[in-house]
Amino acid sequence: MAQIGIGILGGGYMGKAHAVAMSAVGAVFNTALRPRLEMVCASSQASAERYRGAYGFERATDDWRVLVNDPKVGAIIIASPQETHREVAEAAFALGKPVFCEKPLGASLADSAAMVAAAEASGCVNMVGFNYIRTPASQFARKLIADGEIGDVTWFRGEHTEDFYADPEAPATWRTTGDANGTMGDLAPHMINAALALLGPVDRVMAEVETVHASRPGGEVTNDDHAQMMCRFENGAMGHMYFSRVATGRKMGYAYEITGTKGAIRFDQEDQNALWFYRMDEPEATRGFRKILTGPAHPDYRPFCQGPGHGTGYQDQIIIEARDFLSAIETGEAVWPTFRNGHDVNRVIAAAMTSSGSKTWQEIKAF
Amino acid sequence: MAQIGIGILGGGYMGKAHAVAMSAVGAVFNTALRPRLEMVCASSQASAERYRGAYGFERATDDWRVLVNDPKVGAIIIASPQETHREVAEAAFALGKPVFCEKPLGASLADSAAMVAAAEASGCVNMVGFNYIRTPASQFARKLIADGEIGDVTWFRGEHTEDFYADPEAPATWRTTGDANGTMGDLAPHMINAALALLGPVDRVMAEVETVHASRPGGEVTNDDHAQMMCRFENGAMGHMYFSRVATGRKMGYAYEITGTKGAIRFDQEDQNALWFYRMDEPEATRGFRKILTGPAHPDYRPFCQGPGHGTGYQDQIIIEARDFLSAIETGEAVWPTFRNGHDVNRVIAAAMTSSGSKTWQEIKAF
Amino acid sequence: MAQIGIGILGGGYMGKAHAVAMSAVGAVFNTALRPRLEMVCASSQASAERYRGAYGFERATDDWRVLVNDPKVGAIIIASPQETHREVAEAAFALGKPVFCEKPLGASLADSAAMVAAAEASGCVNMVGFNYIRTPASQFARKLIADGEIGDVTWFRGEHTEDFYADPEAPATWRTTGDANGTMGDLAPHMINAALALLGPVDRVMAEVETVHASRPGGEVTNDDHAQMMCRFENGAMGHMYFSRVATGRKMGYAYEITGTKGAIRFDQEDQNALWFYRMDEPEATRGFRKILTGPAHPDYRPFCQGPGHGTGYQDQIIIEARDFLSAIETGEAVWPTFRNGHDVNRVIAAAMTSSGSKTWQEIKAF
Amino acid sequence: MAQIGIGILGGGYMGKAHAVAMSAVGAVFNTALRPRLEMVCASSQASAERYRGAYGFERATDDWRVLVNDPKVGAIIIASPQETHREVAEAAFALGKPVFCEKPLGASLADSAAMVAAAEASGCVNMVGFNYIRTPASQFARKLIADGEIGDVTWFRGEHTEDFYADPEAPATWRTTGDANGTMGDLAPHMINAALALLGPVDRVMAEVETVHASRPGGEVTNDDHAQMMCRFENGAMGHMYFSRVATGRKMGYAYEITGTKGAIRFDQEDQNALWFYRMDEPEATRGFRKILTGPAHPDYRPFCQGPGHGTGYQDQIIIEARDFLSAIETGEAVWPTFRNGHDVNRVIAAAMTSSGSKTWQEIKAF
Ligand SMILES: NC(=O)C1=CN([C@@H]2O[C@H](COP(=O)(O)OP(=O)(O)OC[C@H]3O[C@@H](n4cnc5c(N)ncnc54)[C@H](O)[C@@H]3O)[C@@H](O)[C@H]2O)C=CC1
Ligand SMILES: NC(=O)C1=CN([C@@H]2O[C@H](COP(=O)(O)OP(=O)(O)OC[C@H]3O[C@@H](n4cnc5c(N)ncnc54)[C@H](O)[C@@H]3O)[C@@H](O)[C@H]2O)C=CC1
Ligand SMILES: NC(=O)C1=CN([C@@H]2O[C@H](COP(=O)(O)OP(=O)(O)OC[C@H]3O[C@@H](n4cnc5c(N)ncnc54)[C@H](O)[C@@H]3O)[C@@H](O)[C@H]2O)C=CC1
Ligand SMILES: NC(=O)C1=CN([C@@H]2O[C@H](COP(=O)(O)OP(=O)(O)OC[C@H]3O[C@@H](n4cnc5c(N)ncnc54)[C@H](O)[C@@H]3O)[C@@H](O)[C@H]2O)C=CC1
Repeated sequence: MAQIGIGILGGGYMGKAHAVAMSAVGAVFNTALRPRLEMVCASSQASAERYRGAYGFERATDDWRVLVNDPKVGAIIIASPQETHREVAEAAFALGKPVFCEKPLGASLADSAAMVAAAEASGCVNMVGFNYIRTPASQFARKLIADGEIGDVTWFRGEHTEDFYADPEAPATWRTTGDANGTMGDLAPHMINAALALLGPVDRVMAEVETVHASRPGGEVTNDDHAQMMCRFENGAMGHMYFSRVATGRKMGYAYEITGTKGAIRFDQEDQNALWFYRMDEPEATRGFRKILTGPAHPDYRPFCQGPGHGTGYQDQIIIEARDFLSAIETGEAVWPTFRNGHDVNRVIAAAMTSSGSKTWQEIKAF
Repeated sequence: MAQIGIGILGGGYMGKAHAVAMSAVGAVFNTALRPRLEMVCASSQASAERYRGAYGFERATDDWRVLVNDPKVGAIIIASPQETHREVAEAAFALGKPVFCEKPLGASLADSAAMVAAAEASGCVNMVGFNYIRTPASQFARKLIADGEIGDVTWFRGEHTEDFYADPEAPATWRTTGDANGTMGDLAPHMINAALALLGPVDRVMAEVETVHASRPGGEVTNDDHAQMMCRFENGAMGHMYFSRVATGRKMGYAYEITGTKGAIRFDQEDQNALWFYRMDEPEATRGFRKILTGPAHPDYRPFCQGPGHGTGYQDQIIIEARDFLSAIETGEAVWPTFRNGHDVNRVIAAAMTSSGSKTWQEIKAF
Repeated sequence: MAQIGIGILGGGYMGKAHAVAMSAVGAVFNTALRPRLEMVCASSQASAERYRGAYGFERATDDWRVLVNDPKVGAIIIASPQETHREVAEAAFALGKPVFCEKPLGASLADSAAMVAAAEASGCVNMVGFNYIRTPASQFARKLIADGEIGDVTWFRGEHTEDFYADPEAPATWRTTGDANGTMGDLAPHMINAALALLGPVDRVMAEVETVHASRPGGEVTNDDHAQMMCRFENGAMGHMYFSRVATGRKMGYAYEITGTKGAIRFDQEDQNALWFYRMDEPEATRGFRKILTGPAHPDYRPFCQGPGHGTGYQDQIIIEARDFLSAIETGEAVWPTFRNGHDVNRVIAAAMTSSGSKTWQEIKAF
Repeated sequence: MAQIGIGILGGGYMGKAHAVAMSAVGAVFNTALRPRLEMVCASSQASAERYRGAYGFERATDDWRVLVNDPKVGAIIIASPQETHREVAEAAFALGKPVFCEKPLGASLADSAAMVAAAEASGCVNMVGFNYIRTPASQFARKLIADGEIGDVTWFRGEHTEDFYADPEAPATWRTTGDANGTMGDLAPHMINAALALLGPVDRVMAEVETVHASRPGGEVTNDDHAQMMCRFENGAMGHMYFSRVATGRKMGYAYEITGTKGAIRFDQEDQNALWFYRMDEPEATRGFRKILTGPAHPDYRPFCQGPGHGTGYQDQIIIEARDFLSAIETGEAVWPTFRNGHDVNRVIAAAMTSSGSKTWQEIKAF
């Protein structure tokens, strides 16, 4: 069975998630290409060594160039802070190596534009880590809409809300500085990507981006705590999105409600194995939102479990990503979302930031 | 026991609701002042007679002047279309009679301004029919916020969504013409009033108002199907509201989510006997939104039932309104929401309509 | 319009509920027969007078014989403790007067047997106060089952759980003595009646009846705190019921789950405006329990409100009962549930009490 | 890092789940002992080979003796039908090898008794595959009860309900014959184990076990479709359990409700990342069941994800089992649930089967 050496940059939250995913994906999906945890890179040699041992990599380094250049590393996963994404990706593409990059794609619109250029010039497989849209429920929601089951979409409401900074006394850290680490940089990309996946391109936005707690123990906060935007999709649908890291009580509030002329869909990641679906074409007395529990009848569920309602979790989303990345490498076919898709997300964010400053509607095509 | 003759203008949806409420309110609340169903007025003598018989009024008329002028009619309830509100109210105030007027207050901002002037000049009791805010759950939500239980409010999301026009084939009627009958005129007032009650005044809005189905069997649609607005409250909170009559699957989507620095509240009128409340000051492992079932511990519940969780319904909200109206008449004290409050709701609506046209933020104080 | 004088025995929890219902029912349902609150009876003249004033009765008495015998009292509602039910009902039937009796029917099986005999001998309208089965949701559940929408029923699970005695420190009162005031006497009847209405007769039961807190501040507890029973219905379905007044956290846990060969139904009175319905004959991917919000398409909803999802509450159930009682009086037709139905509920209870003592299955037909 | 060769018997539903778990567990939990997928065994060499390739085992066999005897196989996982459990386990223990056996433990009470004897005689690590109790939510429920947070338990209701045989036209297979494959054999063990874990030993049971559809296309059904039992726990709590494979609409209805004198807990595996918890010691107005989303504050969650509410799934339960099995092997300490615990589950089942036949209460200690 064909093998490929995987190099992961970062051994923290997402570095670990990808290491686990690469350990499990072969057995889960019976992939044609089998990953081998070749090398992990972290800020210090000590931490890199620790990750190597914990996750089962062959080797460790504290220099990303070593990782990228290593001949046994056949594909790169970037799971380090946004500021690092661009140069690592560019270096990898220069060597003709496929790259999976965590969201957001780079630390700025300039970054992601450059990364798209590099990716496309190289012809290498390139993919961005929008994992939430990969649950069986959200994949099925996409299918229902694409199949016309809810008719023409008239309204979209999305949010990505968490509360890890809800406490005004939570101290300032690197997370409270830098646009790319604020709510628009860190949380918005997931839901904007979902919106694009579910409804298609956004035409224009009108946004408000705000820092709620401008100063925290330990320093000033220079990026945003929450933000909202009204938006208009190219298909004509009206929409709204809200992003927050101060949404008291919300833990994984990646949620959407989509209204169509024939039906409606509701989803909340906090109950990720349920999709709510309403059909208008039934007798009035028995109409209602039905709670569909995901199961083998839904995309990418069966490999995890034969029983419906048994449920998948966060880590499983990363395993699905791993399967998609490996299969793109094996077949050479592009896999959604590519860097271009990730850049399109960044364009909406850039338009929203501009809109918030100018208090005017901004067309995405200008970004 | 003191009695008062009630005259109701309109015997339809709300005319009936108020007639029932006035029949029941004395026994429910042991009111000092007891209402007597004196006279009902409708468009035709035949329908007025039918309503008289059905609801138990003493007399019937097809001329609202007869109703207003009748000496045995001591208080007027206006439950007829928005176009009729103003002249009836003005006539009643001129005679020194208390008026309860269904929402929205009049058919336009000019109407409601004139109605406020007439009400205040007369010194009569004047009240607007925002019933949803009177559930025990929403009254308790107001109290939690006022008591500081969720800290400083940072975010408000409200909606009033129904789907009675979701079907594009639903025919055009009088409801599909006239601003006052569109979604902004018909549904928005309830939630805007809730927002003002829960958070205080709105400072400015940025809105989009839209007709989704511009033509329906039977004619053109000249008012709005759905609308959204971003808003900023005077207390600094950011907010968003959405109103729709095409929200497929939603039947009584009067719902709000309020985030504060210490807690959060969630409510959906489709489950009107539950209020969701989150407190941050608990051990992390046992924190969660708690589903509080309304009961005798909550405002205005006990008179309906001694048992918690037994539940109140739509009609009970109108009975609570009746109690408030009667008690204002008896004591002479103003009762929230007065016509001025109803006019303040209309000012927000007017600002939103202007904003939607100009695509700019509009300050409420300019309206 | 024909009128009838109503006499209510009791002015407490249920006495008030019926007084309110009789005040409102005419306007709500446009009944042919219109009730007049003629006389209220309570334990003392003082309290009776207080109820008279509060609820709007013409007269008051502390002697139930005066109430029953009064020529202007055309129908009797018994809303006093179970010990009083029998003699009052017998006296009323002797005078040819219709009787509505609160649940349970009498204080014992002997009582209810005698009451059935008296009722049937008199030919008078006789009805028992099982209000919960009258919500639009539960009426619709009955209809779905009767129409075969869930196929053959294989399993029934019902409960009536509240927590007003969950606190072991709650003091002993009259409620903690006497079988008729225990959980089997006070709460079980509602759910047993529901089971009979939804599935038909019970064939046999095997029960456990228990006092959890045998002594409370103020005295010994001589009746039961909670009880369970396995049961077999005549239609072959297996079932289970649980009743509790110590069900911490449950406020109105009148809930059932019914499984059939083609579908299933779930209901919980704590969200009384929703019925959950599952159909097996749909594509696997879109199957799920749908949450049906009650509305004008469901039994007895429209008179309360034209809008679906707007909701009915506890008091509305009593208004529906009032309509049924009045219409039975007017037409002379028996109305479900009659005293015989109430007695059938008591027979199941008696069988359960015997079973709990003997630890054997008991056939209902033996009781 | 120490390694151990794992041999898995069976490559179907659970064989795969364990293979995946063993691939991932090292990286997830940073285990001291690292598993190596050494050999897989299945009924035919062809299928065994297929599993080897798919899951990444070194070798494959169709003879379980080869698997058990192989010197490189240091620990055995039995994921084959119940009939095979006993002889494989006995052979493994005879060689001093640790055994993890899927539930139920053996095909009969005699099997599990023998397996306990063999396990205890050998002194080897022995563990049974009750995975559902290992979710962070259910582990936390155990802790809440053990810590006295809900006081003394008065009532337990558990169910394990699915609907894979709800359709009467679903054909007869091996699953529809043999006690060990019926609902009592296949589904009941999970919930009985949960009951024992949450409340402690069961003292006695009174059960009904039933075949709903005695004949199916393809043959007669000789085991049970659903079953219920009333039970009494040694701690005095009353309880009830229900098990069904014909529970139309239920997909993973592993659910329990536990009432105590100070609080209550509710859980449903269909929403496995939420635990509902009620406390009585709060002001009446703000009491309610709180929906706790699992997160790093709960047992065994953090290794899967640092973010609360992000959720774990079915496969993650098996990974937690793998960690426990490996750590027991490494430390030599027994790990719950041992074969004895699995046998205790079987004793309750045996008592229930006897009870159903004799229609009498059965004490567990007699089995
Ligand atoms: N898809 C998702 O659900 C999530 C995505 N992310 C994204 O994943 C990326 C990583 O975030 P986390 O894992 O949360 O961060 P983290 O702080 O947990 O880990 C970052 C890792 O990068 C390493 N690192 C940092 N700078 C480095 C450098 N110059 N050279 C080598 N190694 C370096 C650190 O040593 C550390 O191991 C970010 O882009 C973030 O936005 C983060 C959390 C969730
Ligand atoms: N608070 C709430 O939940 C609701 C409030 N409303 C408000 O209640 C008012 C009435 O609406 P509906 O009851 O739905 O209308 P409807 O169409 O059901 O009834 C209107 C009634 O007014 C009478 N009427 C109309 N023009 C008249 C005239 N010139 N003279 C005498 N009688 C006249 C009609 O005969 C009819 O009886 C409106 O202002 C509406 O916005 C309506 C529905 C719900
Ligand atoms: N359907 C339902 O949801 C409910 C039904 N009930 C039933 O309603 C009945 C009454 O219960 P509650 O209203 O809770 O009782 P309560 O204690 O609130 O009121 C009882 C009333 O009966 C009067 N009364 C008692 N003995 C009397 C006598 N000998 N002569 C005249 N008046 C007498 C008392 O003065 C009092 O006004 C009971 O049968 C009870 O089981 C009670 C609560 C709910
Ligand atoms: N914990 C849980 O959630 C679940 C546990 N189980 C349990 O897991 C065990 C296996 O069930 P499934 O995986 O559903 O079965 P399955 O039918 O999917 O797979 C059984 C495997 O055992 C192999 N096998 C059967 N007889 C064999 C023999 N004599 N020698 C060698 N290999 C043999 C087959 O080739 C097959 O690979 C059972 O004990 C079952 O009760 C099953 C499903 C879920």
